[in-house]
Amino acid sequence: MPERRKLSEAEIATAVKKLKGWKVVGGKLHKEFKFADFVGAFGFMTSAALIAEGMNHHPEWSNVYNKLVIDLSTHSEGGITGLDVELAGKLEKIGSPG
Amino acid sequence: MPERRKLSEAEIATAVKKLKGWKVVGGKLHKEFKFADFVGAFGFMTSAALIAEGMNHHPEWSNVYNKLVIDLSTHSEGGITGLDVELAGKLEKIGSPG
Amino acid sequence: MPERRKLSEAEIATAVKKLKGWKVVGGKLHKEFKFADFVGAFGFMTSAALIAEGMNHHPEWSNVYNKLVIDLSTHSEGGITGLDVELAGKLEKIGSPG
Amino acid sequence: MPERRKLSEAEIATAVKKLKGWKVVGGKLHKEFKFADFVGAFGFMTSAALIAEGMNHHPEWSNVYNKLVIDLSTHSEGGITGLDVELAGKLEKIGSPG
Repeated sequence: MPERRKLSEAEIATAVKKLKGWKVVGGKLHKEFKFADFVGAFGFMTSAALIAEGMNHHPEWSNVYNKLVIDLSTHSEGGITGLDVELAGKLEKIGSPG
Repeated sequence: MPERRKLSEAEIATAVKKLKGWKVVGGKLHKEFKFADFVGAFGFMTSAALIAEGMNHHPEWSNVYNKLVIDLSTHSEGGITGLDVELAGKLEKIGSPG
Repeated sequence: MPERRKLSEAEIATAVKKLKGWKVVGGKLHKEFKFADFVGAFGFMTSAALIAEGMNHHPEWSNVYNKLVIDLSTHSEGGITGLDVELAGKLEKIGSPG
Repeated sequence: MPERRKLSEAEIATAVKKLKGWKVVGGKLHKEFKFADFVGAFGFMTSAALIAEGMNHHPEWSNVYNKLVIDLSTHSEGGITGLDVELAGKLEKIGSPG
């Protein structure tokens, strides 16, 4: 069960090390994705939307064609929490088999 | 058939008058949408994605929870074209009957 | 909180009366939807998918162009439960303001 | 450019040989997919929906949780055409890099 508690800088640094391509930008977990085309980008976004709705924890994101930028933070806590780390981890698994 | 030609300021002004809630910001057709919740926002985004793919003309857009910001322009022409006006018009009809 | 308990025929009959266009077919809550086009149908399906994932309770559904058929039941209970009634009710609200 | 012409049995047999997991069932191109979960299934469906809308050629499909069944045929021609073979081929590429 992820914690809805603002993580310390050390905790965030440890978490980010385990996430491929994520870094901290402007106090948020940040990643830039590039897909083959819009079909690839928006299919990923739909899987991500389902995961987010299932967690009741939603991303800030922007898309142009095959590019997607995601920023994760927990507004109510004013920073990065265990929820953000969990959501980032789940996004990494989209498209993997079973 | 919409024109892939950069519209004049006068043409854009005329087109914008017919579009509800759209204005020109930074040389792009711009609108900010607000939905009941993420479910409403992302359902709309999916319909919009289908329309965009059908036109092979895609938006710049960003979303947080129930908010969605869309900017339309035609990169190859360096400005707003008939394609953008047509896409904006089609987005206005999402959710309407028949 | 909806009950994950098989409802009696009387309970189902009462629930169905409050749902527009739903009936019991083959022991499942059943509705046939018709939209303006595929864009309308699949946008609705995406909102429905988000709701279903949020409840961790998923529909049986089939789609061709602008037509969508949804059947709801709870496999683990072998029939229609409060979860199905709740999901049907939430689907009725897709596209409504706030 | 795919042909909107009913293919002969020999043409269909040749086409099916190149498509992984597709066969002819009831006069339609048919495939059954299984994903890790609903998130995987519906993300795929959204990419497929975008491809279909871009071709203006839509599938018959049904989904339950992680299972998806797709049937392709061209109603106006009363059988399997080059459009169906092309759509099946594009669905095979969803999720592949670039």
